[in-house]
Amino acid sequence: MQGQSQQQAYDRGITIFSPDGRLYQVEYAREAVKRGTASIGVRTPDGVVLAVDKRFRSPLEERSSVEKIHKADDHIGIASAGHVADARQLIDFARRQAQVNQLRYGEPIGVETLTKDVTDHIQQYTQVGGARPFGVALIIGGVEDGEPRLYETDPSGTPTEWQALAVGSGRSEMLDHLEENYREEMDLDGGIGLALETLATATDDAIEASGTGVATIDVETERFRQLDDDEIESYLDEQDLDVDESDDE
Amino acid sequence: MQGQSQQQAYDRGITIFSPDGRLYQVEYAREAVKRGTASIGVRTPDGVVLAVDKRFRSPLEERSSVEKIHKADDHIGIASAGHVADARQLIDFARRQAQVNQLRYGEPIGVETLTKDVTDHIQQYTQVGGARPFGVALIIGGVEDGEPRLYETDPSGTPTEWQALAVGSGRSEMLDHLEENYREEMDLDGGIGLALETLATATDDAIEASGTGVATIDVETERFRQLDDDEIESYLDEQDLDVDESDDE
Amino acid sequence: MQGQSQQQAYDRGITIFSPDGRLYQVEYAREAVKRGTASIGVRTPDGVVLAVDKRFRSPLEERSSVEKIHKADDHIGIASAGHVADARQLIDFARRQAQVNQLRYGEPIGVETLTKDVTDHIQQYTQVGGARPFGVALIIGGVEDGEPRLYETDPSGTPTEWQALAVGSGRSEMLDHLEENYREEMDLDGGIGLALETLATATDDAIEASGTGVATIDVETERFRQLDDDEIESYLDEQDLDVDESDDE
Amino acid sequence: MQGQSQQQAYDRGITIFSPDGRLYQVEYAREAVKRGTASIGVRTPDGVVLAVDKRFRSPLEERSSVEKIHKADDHIGIASAGHVADARQLIDFARRQAQVNQLRYGEPIGVETLTKDVTDHIQQYTQVGGARPFGVALIIGGVEDGEPRLYETDPSGTPTEWQALAVGSGRSEMLDHLEENYREEMDLDGGIGLALETLATATDDAIEASGTGVATIDVETERFRQLDDDEIESYLDEQDLDVDESDDE
Amino acid sequence: MQGQSQQQAYDRGITIFSPDGRLYQVEYAREAVKRGTASIGVRTPDGVVLAVDKRFRSPLEERSSVEKIHKADDHIGIASAGHVADARQLIDFARRQAQVNQLRYGEPIGVETLTKDVTDHIQQYTQVGGARPFGVALIIGGVEDGEPRLYETDPSGTPTEWQALAVGSGRSEMLDHLEENYREEMDLDGGIGLALETLATATDDAIEASGTGVATIDVETERFRQLDDDEIESYLDEQDLDVDESDDE
Amino acid sequence: MQGQSQQQAYDRGITIFSPDGRLYQVEYAREAVKRGTASIGVRTPDGVVLAVDKRFRSPLEERSSVEKIHKADDHIGIASAGHVADARQLIDFARRQAQVNQLRYGEPIGVETLTKDVTDHIQQYTQVGGARPFGVALIIGGVEDGEPRLYETDPSGTPTEWQALAVGSGRSEMLDHLEENYREEMDLDGGIGLALETLATATDDAIEASGTGVATIDVETERFRQLDDDEIESYLDEQDLDVDESDDE
Amino acid sequence: MQGQSQQQAYDRGITIFSPDGRLYQVEYAREAVKRGTASIGVRTPDGVVLAVDKRFRSPLEERSSVEKIHKADDHIGIASAGHVADARQLIDFARRQAQVNQLRYGEPIGVETLTKDVTDHIQQYTQVGGARPFGVALIIGGVEDGEPRLYETDPSGTPTEWQALAVGSGRSEMLDHLEENYREEMDLDGGIGLALETLATATDDAIEASGTGVATIDVETERFRQLDDDEIESYLDEQDLDVDESDDE
Repeated sequence: MQGQSQQQAYDRGITIFSPDGRLYQVEYAREAVKRGTASIGVRTPDGVVLAVDKRFRSPLEERSSVEKIHKADDHIGIASAGHVADARQLIDFARRQAQVNQLRYGEPIGVETLTKDVTDHIQQYTQVGGARPFGVALIIGGVEDGEPRLYETDPSGTPTEWQALAVGSGRSEMLDHLEENYREEMDLDGGIGLALETLATATDDAIEASGTGVATIDVETERFRQLDDDEIESYLDEQDLDVDESDDE
Repeated sequence: MQGQSQQQAYDRGITIFSPDGRLYQVEYAREAVKRGTASIGVRTPDGVVLAVDKRFRSPLEERSSVEKIHKADDHIGIASAGHVADARQLIDFARRQAQVNQLRYGEPIGVETLTKDVTDHIQQYTQVGGARPFGVALIIGGVEDGEPRLYETDPSGTPTEWQALAVGSGRSEMLDHLEENYREEMDLDGGIGLALETLATATDDAIEASGTGVATIDVETERFRQLDDDEIESYLDEQDLDVDESDDE
Repeated sequence: MQGQSQQQAYDRGITIFSPDGRLYQVEYAREAVKRGTASIGVRTPDGVVLAVDKRFRSPLEERSSVEKIHKADDHIGIASAGHVADARQLIDFARRQAQVNQLRYGEPIGVETLTKDVTDHIQQYTQVGGARPFGVALIIGGVEDGEPRLYETDPSGTPTEWQALAVGSGRSEMLDHLEENYREEMDLDGGIGLALETLATATDDAIEASGTGVATIDVETERFRQLDDDEIESYLDEQDLDVDESDDE
Repeated sequence: MQGQSQQQAYDRGITIFSPDGRLYQVEYAREAVKRGTASIGVRTPDGVVLAVDKRFRSPLEERSSVEKIHKADDHIGIASAGHVADARQLIDFARRQAQVNQLRYGEPIGVETLTKDVTDHIQQYTQVGGARPFGVALIIGGVEDGEPRLYETDPSGTPTEWQALAVGSGRSEMLDHLEENYREEMDLDGGIGLALETLATATDDAIEASGTGVATIDVETERFRQLDDDEIESYLDEQDLDVDESDDE
Repeated sequence: MQGQSQQQAYDRGITIFSPDGRLYQVEYAREAVKRGTASIGVRTPDGVVLAVDKRFRSPLEERSSVEKIHKADDHIGIASAGHVADARQLIDFARRQAQVNQLRYGEPIGVETLTKDVTDHIQQYTQVGGARPFGVALIIGGVEDGEPRLYETDPSGTPTEWQALAVGSGRSEMLDHLEENYREEMDLDGGIGLALETLATATDDAIEASGTGVATIDVETERFRQLDDDEIESYLDEQDLDVDESDDE
Repeated sequence: MQGQSQQQAYDRGITIFSPDGRLYQVEYAREAVKRGTASIGVRTPDGVVLAVDKRFRSPLEERSSVEKIHKADDHIGIASAGHVADARQLIDFARRQAQVNQLRYGEPIGVETLTKDVTDHIQQYTQVGGARPFGVALIIGGVEDGEPRLYETDPSGTPTEWQALAVGSGRSEMLDHLEENYREEMDLDGGIGLALETLATATDDAIEASGTGVATIDVETERFRQLDDDEIESYLDEQDLDVDESDDE
Repeated sequence: MQGQSQQQAYDRGITIFSPDGRLYQVEYAREAVKRGTASIGVRTPDGVVLAVDKRFRSPLEERSSVEKIHKADDHIGIASAGHVADARQLIDFARRQAQVNQLRYGEPIGVETLTKDVTDHIQQYTQVGGARPFGVALIIGGVEDGEPRLYETDPSGTPTEWQALAVGSGRSEMLDHLEENYREEMDLDGGIGLALETLATATDDAIEASGTGVATIDVETERFRQLDDDEIESYLDEQDLDVDESDDE
């Protein structure tokens, strides 16, 4: 509805409304998310699965340093897509909120409570001047009162609860894949398989265990756990998602 | 009266007056409201009805997370249209005001008092620099001294009391429908029916229980109550507003 | 003296002087007043009359919510024209000043004192950066030491005392009517009649009791009192200002 | 020396220097003074005379509300020209300074001291960002240690002491008249006559008592006193400055 | 080196560097000094002479109010050229510094110390944003430990010590005159004569005692003293600098 | 995807998002890094090697003052590329963090902890207004719990762990060289050799001991140690990287 | 790489990065240094020599007031080139740091410590908004633990240690001269000679003792000492750098 030159007028400096009621700085922050590598979340009755694309720019990069899945609390994990340094700030914020909750109320923070603390924090950066929005989307997964919960936060500060979702580069293809293949009754293994399959749809090349991160929070232990390469490899083998000739590591 | 290029000059940065006395940032925030999904409020002698369109972007979204009706206090509900993250801030503000009132005066906050607290808060964001206006309209409904009350807040910070109103996408068609069909003496069931009917006028497709939210605050119990899908379904059946073949859930 | 393009240069951002010594943001705020619906004040030896146009945008709007006459204190009423949310802020400010005066000095605030408190507050918003001016004019009427007093505040923060005045849409026609018909010795009934007559000059359609607000502060009781519809109706009947076929309520 | 387009570059936002060392915002504030109605001050050995043009925009305006002569302290009066709401702020500031002086030192503030307090206050608004200059000139007259004193403050914050001066619309014609007709030894009556005569040179129409304000601070009583209409009338009669047929009051 | 359009880009808003390392706002403030009326300082072994052009805009202006020579402390005088209201601020600052020094150390402030306090204050206004530079140059003269001292402060905040100097309109002609005629061994009378002679070079018309201010701080008394008109007259007579027919006072 | 003129619109003032989700000020700060002289880090099982190009602009510069390798703590060294004064600020920040950790917890700070403290600090400068990003990349190397660790911080505030890396001028050629020649099992001597070889790929001229800085933190001593020229010389000799005829010192 | 019009876009307002990673405000501040008069520093085993060009704009200027060599502490001197008022601020800052160090640690501040305190202070003005960089370079020379030290601070806040250096107008010619003629083993007299010779290369005219400042801090006394004109004269005679006919003092 707005031409290019029109649009330019409303997207600079602080975050303000355009004539058609849009917040361009927030929409541009969403573009920063789309430029990020893919992250997936899948919720099953047995627990939550987080999976991320963490391929290296160089074989000399340490794998742990590009980790895109973070433990926010014993029972909550966070995957991210977008501006990496911004993601780190929000994850630190989430960890502090989790600690404060534990100290104040003597019990672990709920997944929903944590998500809303984070989105309130994000929203402030879209309304009050003097700072830009956060250029990152988070997938927050965890177990709360024995129930698996899976949330997304976007750069506007809106929380959304999902059964399964994808953020980052290739989101729409991945969402299509998830919508077609998600079954509510799937077990945790099935969830991991679906997450890896979905990740594969977003990448031109075959995916490898070393370039992939997977974590789970299962209902039984209520503990965040990262899978090691061998475990990931076996899932990939099972689904023929990997390739035999890995030529760059 | 002002051409396009003129207008461009007065709608950037902080909220200031244009030569013809308008506040463009506030008007653009109203556009953000019009881009939002529809919300309806109907007041009957038996209580207040809130109804919202909460259709999903994806079948994988959790329904509760797109909830657009919120309990502000035991006797007050709020529906919103517009920028979702902004709505969440105002609803949190409203909840805190309700709690503060209870603590300070030992009694529930009045619906009008709450509405005016919220609109004062909104107005500040339209006059003092350093922040943009809130891009959201709220429908605040509740019972006060045994009387049903129904208010709207708009992005300028003006409160308006209504017998029945609609905000968001399709507002003018919905208001026409309400004006034609509203009767002061209708009972709560009639109010729910009218609200759902009105919502249907704003949507091209037939409406479904799963994509619709309804809440009531009745005069007798003075309690906010959300209807479940079956209840909504029975109202839709009664009025032939739903369709037999629901193919996307 | 200044062309259009010249003018554009001095009316943005904070309120600053143009080369010919004008404050454009204040002048634009006056335009916001002119866009507002009409309000009238008439002072008679027996008391002060406030009258306002409060026609509805929709028949579903509650009449009380579009009330444009407010009680500032037992003995002072305020009518407004212009940006409604701004008016509410100033009226709240006026009420707080009235309460503070009562608490501090143990006596009701004077009408003039209150007016000057309000205009000082308004002026600050025209000189110090970081906020826009208030886009509203107030008519402040009341009784002080047994004397009826009637003031106007404008967006520049200038107080003016009047025998009779009009603000908002149609001001100049209404002022002409008042100047021609005002008599200093008229009684309160005459004042109400003149106010309603004057209001009629500003509206294309006939005026109705339901779309009109009238309040008085008489010298005897020193109490602010709003007239109900029947009372207003009888005044309208008396002056043939209403119409028989009211077709929209 | 600077063309029009050059000038435009240095007169916006905060008050800064232009390439030829001028402060345009201050100069524009002086234009606001020139747009104001005329005010006159005359100093005689017997006391100081202040005279102002206070004609009404409408016959319904209360005369006292357009008063442009203010008592700052028992022994000091202030007349103003320019932006009325700004003048009120400076006069309030002056009154507070006078009170503070009385409280702190137990004696009335000197006319010169008061003037310099006011001009210091004005200067701040021309150098520090975040506010515009005051668009008003004041004539401060009073008696100090038995001596009549007469000062001007301008929008740059410069104080000037005068024997007789004029500010506002028609200043240069009025100053010419004063320079030609002022005599140091004139008595207070002569001063009043000269002030009214001078005021007449600035107005196309004949002047009337009702549209004119006159105040004196005489050396004997050291008291500020406003003349009533009859007194002013008799001075006008004496000098044939008024007209017989006053047709608009 | 830079063309006109280049220059325009670096001289607005806060004081910043231009590509060739200049601070335009400071240079423009220097222009404000050049637009000011002339001030002269001459140092002799017997004391310091300050002389200023203080001609009136109107014969009605009180001479004392255009005084451009100020006593900063018993032993220090200050003359100024440029923006008068700015000069007043700096002189007040200097007086406060002198008082603080007396209170803190129990002895009069040194001329050099005072000058550097003032220039530090001035420099802050050229580096930190939110204010414009001071548009004034000061000549600070006094006696310190029995030695006459004579300083200049410029708008950049640089202090310079001089044997004799001139600031304001006609500076370069006046400096030429001083360089040619200054002799280190001249007595105070000779200094006064040289100062008046120099002042005459800057004015087209002959100079008069009434339009000239002269002050001295002699080494013996260490006291600031303003000369009265008769004294100035006698110096002018001596040097044939005045005219017989003074026709405008 | 964006043309040149588009880009210009989003890279000024504070750090904000461009329409395609990029932060130009951060990207420009990365250019400042690329303009910096080269720095290398190599991690071997025996310890970490840091090597820098520290050639002089003039033979009169003291070598120690262009030192680009800094000791952050006994067991941590930092090399930098980019804006030198910015690097100094971050290194001071790192040192303070190391001291605070020692004081607070009684043990040396971990290399990862230190890196993340530094990157959090950097990120703040990319999101909150009022400051520009840091125009520098750091290589932080050290030993933590007996393990060699090697990190990079970039201007966005992202930490990355590496086996071997290069920053500054010629980065991509140097990274290519490192990727081809790095072997995980190499000893510290091999690491030093590789670092110097890599540095040579980035410089047109042969490298000399005097223009090169090398430091190691070995696993055994856990101590930061700078090599002297003779040591560096012997490594260069070994690898034929230096030249016989050094003609500029 | 960037054309003229490109460059203009990144060098205004606060100090931000240009697309090629440069900080234009800092580079322009360096131009302010280049516009300054020349200053030289030479380090010999016997002590440090500072020499400056301090020619007068007018013969009436007091020589001490244009002094460009300052004592920062008993054992440290500072010479400057560039914006004089800025230099004064930094030198005051340096003196305060020296005093604080003495008070806090009971010993004189080290030359390197002082230099880094100053450069940290300078760097802040290049990164945090609201102020411009300092337009000055300092040469800081002194003796620390019996060792002569010589540093430069530039407008970016980078400290550099030198054997001999020159800043200000003619820097590159002077540096060439120093590089050719500097010998590490030269004595203090040789250093003074070299400094004066170097200064002569930067000036078209012959140099005179009166227009030259020289100071030394020798290793033996560890005391800052300014040479008087006769001493300077004898050095100039020795090297035939002065002229016989001094015609302007």
